[in-house]
Amino acid sequence: MLQAKLTSRSSSEQQTIVHLSPSVAIGGQQITIIAGPCTVESQTQMDLVATKLQAAPVQAIRGGVYKPRTSPYAFQGMGVEGLEILGRVRSHHHLPVVTEVMAISQIPILVEQADMLQVGSRNMQNFDLLKELGQINKPILLKRGLAATLEEFVMAAEYILSHGNDQVVLCERGIRSFDTYTRNILDLGGVVALKQLTHLPVIVDPSHATGKRELVAPLAKAAIACGADGLIIECHPVPEESVSDARQALSLEDMIKLVHELQPVAAAVGRTMVQRQLVAA
Amino acid sequence: MLQAKLTSRSSSEQQTIVHLSPSVAIGGQQITIIAGPCTVESQTQMDLVATKLQAAPVQAIRGGVYKPRTSPYAFQGMGVEGLEILGRVRSHHHLPVVTEVMAISQIPILVEQADMLQVGSRNMQNFDLLKELGQINKPILLKRGLAATLEEFVMAAEYILSHGNDQVVLCERGIRSFDTYTRNILDLGGVVALKQLTHLPVIVDPSHATGKRELVAPLAKAAIACGADGLIIECHPVPEESVSDARQALSLEDMIKLVHELQPVAAAVGRTMVQRQLVAA
Amino acid sequence: MLQAKLTSRSSSEQQTIVHLSPSVAIGGQQITIIAGPCTVESQTQMDLVATKLQAAPVQAIRGGVYKPRTSPYAFQGMGVEGLEILGRVRSHHHLPVVTEVMAISQIPILVEQADMLQVGSRNMQNFDLLKELGQINKPILLKRGLAATLEEFVMAAEYILSHGNDQVVLCERGIRSFDTYTRNILDLGGVVALKQLTHLPVIVDPSHATGKRELVAPLAKAAIACGADGLIIECHPVPEESVSDARQALSLEDMIKLVHELQPVAAAVGRTMVQRQLVAA
Amino acid sequence: MLQAKLTSRSSSEQQTIVHLSPSVAIGGQQITIIAGPCTVESQTQMDLVATKLQAAPVQAIRGGVYKPRTSPYAFQGMGVEGLEILGRVRSHHHLPVVTEVMAISQIPILVEQADMLQVGSRNMQNFDLLKELGQINKPILLKRGLAATLEEFVMAAEYILSHGNDQVVLCERGIRSFDTYTRNILDLGGVVALKQLTHLPVIVDPSHATGKRELVAPLAKAAIACGADGLIIECHPVPEESVSDARQALSLEDMIKLVHELQPVAAAVGRTMVQRQLVAA
Repeated sequence: MLQAKLTSRSSSEQQTIVHLSPSVAIGGQQITIIAGPCTVESQTQMDLVATKLQAAPVQAIRGGVYKPRTSPYAFQGMGVEGLEILGRVRSHHHLPVVTEVMAISQIPILVEQADMLQVGSRNMQNFDLLKELGQINKPILLKRGLAATLEEFVMAAEYILSHGNDQVVLCERGIRSFDTYTRNILDLGGVVALKQLTHLPVIVDPSHATGKRELVAPLAKAAIACGADGLIIECHPVPEESVSDARQALSLEDMIKLVHELQPVAAAVGRTMVQRQLVAA
Repeated sequence: MLQAKLTSRSSSEQQTIVHLSPSVAIGGQQITIIAGPCTVESQTQMDLVATKLQAAPVQAIRGGVYKPRTSPYAFQGMGVEGLEILGRVRSHHHLPVVTEVMAISQIPILVEQADMLQVGSRNMQNFDLLKELGQINKPILLKRGLAATLEEFVMAAEYILSHGNDQVVLCERGIRSFDTYTRNILDLGGVVALKQLTHLPVIVDPSHATGKRELVAPLAKAAIACGADGLIIECHPVPEESVSDARQALSLEDMIKLVHELQPVAAAVGRTMVQRQLVAA
Repeated sequence: MLQAKLTSRSSSEQQTIVHLSPSVAIGGQQITIIAGPCTVESQTQMDLVATKLQAAPVQAIRGGVYKPRTSPYAFQGMGVEGLEILGRVRSHHHLPVVTEVMAISQIPILVEQADMLQVGSRNMQNFDLLKELGQINKPILLKRGLAATLEEFVMAAEYILSHGNDQVVLCERGIRSFDTYTRNILDLGGVVALKQLTHLPVIVDPSHATGKRELVAPLAKAAIACGADGLIIECHPVPEESVSDARQALSLEDMIKLVHELQPVAAAVGRTMVQRQLVAA
Repeated sequence: MLQAKLTSRSSSEQQTIVHLSPSVAIGGQQITIIAGPCTVESQTQMDLVATKLQAAPVQAIRGGVYKPRTSPYAFQGMGVEGLEILGRVRSHHHLPVVTEVMAISQIPILVEQADMLQVGSRNMQNFDLLKELGQINKPILLKRGLAATLEEFVMAAEYILSHGNDQVVLCERGIRSFDTYTRNILDLGGVVALKQLTHLPVIVDPSHATGKRELVAPLAKAAIACGADGLIIECHPVPEESVSDARQALSLEDMIKLVHELQPVAAAVGRTMVQRQLVAA
């Protein structure tokens, strides 16, 4: 990975810290949890999720409004209407919002309504999109492609940094393998390697990595134990009614329980987590 | 693949035939060969290639002007200048031109200068690009993603057809595996399956599939033997001087030799190829 | 693959030819077809298969009596009783017999009753078995492991040769991948590479590679077109009643049809096949 | 995995606990650490390792005397001489010994000198070996095959249990993938799934999973955090001088450091580890 001039650890003495808001950052000593539904479905849904997650506490909320779907006949997301819901959640609940960008044309409106733009696995090497995202002043959550090598992943981040935007967080979300019991294989060795190779924050998505909710909590703990800087996890008020990825979403109760169970794991490896009372203050 | 309404074989009694020009088509009884360099490098290079390939005969010429490169510091293609070279090759040599589209913004100019727009592996699930390509009147060469299942591949084509463009050719170009001796693994079983599952033409790219020129000719023969409708092959006047993918390009002499060796293989499975004298006429 | 002293092409000017009987060999200009059921089920079954295949003509008959099964509760093969059936088929029909060896203890009896011993994919790196097989005077059919690199495959053959037995045929039978439409991915690029790297004969098993009978014939043609020295194909008098791998077995009629269709493909790449009348003589 | 009668969690209310010695077990609330060199090289080496590891404390020592090597020309292990070294280590240091069995013929002598017999990845589906190991009274450490699905892995264990031996520990050690930065991909999602699907203890080998020593400690913590019952880790007095797998072995000092760092992680998920003073007693 000799060509990784800007993302490689040797290029920067300090660990990069990416700010989603004045009070929420990824990459410091504190673990950051992003949670929320796969898809924004309604204002009621998102208000309920935000209220519960804020108390967990979770530091940011996710929800897709532009959805990359294998089939053109599947629900493609609420689009602008969904973005407006996210905008209201953000202002009412003071939670930073993370949502996916699929096309260059969506960037201007997303920059206004969201605090972090996610590049999905299928677009990890959509180089024209990466170049454009390199020219905005907004944090980028770059998900690893389904069959991307670590080198390709780092070089995709390099596209963004080399075009001017250094607020990039890497996200391991499972890679393709021969075993279909889990949807993908979570590559935590890759997470450790990325932390050694680059100065960018690295978070883990155990929901897409496994596709099965009963595997999410143990892998979330494993991710923190091996040095990930945070997690992005799917949860839903009624998981089995989720319009997408229903099989992998946690209930809000299980999500809150997981946040509490992560505290001692974070402490065991010298990391901290936001305490409940601090948020309530 | 129940959702594949428009691409599935049951949806159409006839095999789709895609026309690159009045005299060049893909999907009929005749095998179609597309050849040319990975990257357009100069007018001289392309004129030499076109002259030689036309006599092979090859039915269409390929050459990239917008290049998807792993590194942002690698040569990104000649862009508009390269397109103008392709335009001149097309008019002087009467050869249809195939070149890659990487972004929606490139579509208008590519539609003018090229006869077929290629969607590369990394963009196979760039759904916004696919939707736009569904609204133009130009053949699309859709390459299989590096880790795309056959279902995902067919559904990506379905995006284009469902938005109005039914001139789609599928291209198998190798998938990722654990063995690094070859760059990728050519999935000819997938080619046979695609021919059974869809009515779209299916061609094979043995150059990217293997990354080694000494493997290209035997796999080209295998592709035709198992039912592929054509081939897209990289060749270069001086392969070792190619600005990209030098290791996999055939010399023009080897390319011509291969075309001749393919004739009896095509005949053995009931297919035809354009004869040298027909082109000369 | 520097360590491949005995199997590498540079170590031997000549192509190795492995003899199953005085009149049947693998590795020469003539293509060799081995066919038969996955599992030996009865004398009646095997006599019927042998009679039909001999007229195809097919050069050798396969049938498992020791079966490697994922589950300990699945049928493990007829064992010695099955071997006796194979022995009678061999003497009555004058067809060489190929069957799998799973353990060192089976070698003595298999050496007596079979003309070629097959090492299955799961045992490709069962090094103690390979060492023993290196000390017998009987051809070995070594199948590639499900996730074996070409280097590991060649070095497994090297185990046999370095212990004294140079009658080894390599068999590509599909490798594991992420796509489940086909059971495995047939790696014909690997076949071409093996032919270049080693002087050992290389044959292809399109039945296990795909697991679907409708894909077998096209891939058999592809294998011959790219330079394979032969094929091993599963067929059964009533495929859907096969005790194992029913989904991939050809009917005997389709098997005979395939043999005829392979003739022009072999001729197209400069190879020959046994003619029907020669066998009848 | 309906056929997994004896290994499936539903078949047994209790978690299986496998005893390596009266005082060392795997599968209870306490985490078990097995460590040692890849290969037994000398009495001096093993005594040094045993002395240091015992104080760590580590509960069992590993060391190969029969080595499965890709090349027949590579060192194949010390064999019986190495076993005698292991026997002396076991009696002098009171540490249970784990070593690999490659062939049925090795079982009698290994049963005498070792406390647990390891089946390596390459032999996971060496069914005749598994059947024999099912008939002995000795714990078995069954490593997952390089490309084995979870179902195949569980069914391999089922072979051992169904032949009478229920003292089986499963070991995840990385699976093959397309990325070569790490030697394999550690599948911790598989570990979590195995803990849910079976009642057998599950341990993790982070050394073979990554092939790089700098990745071992973080992944060891991750394994414990997600619920593994123990670890098997390679270490060596002078790692760079190890006769095999030198790149992945920890120094003894790093091994001891890791054991201490694992304590809070184990506690964070409700598990315990042997304390230093308890061993000294």
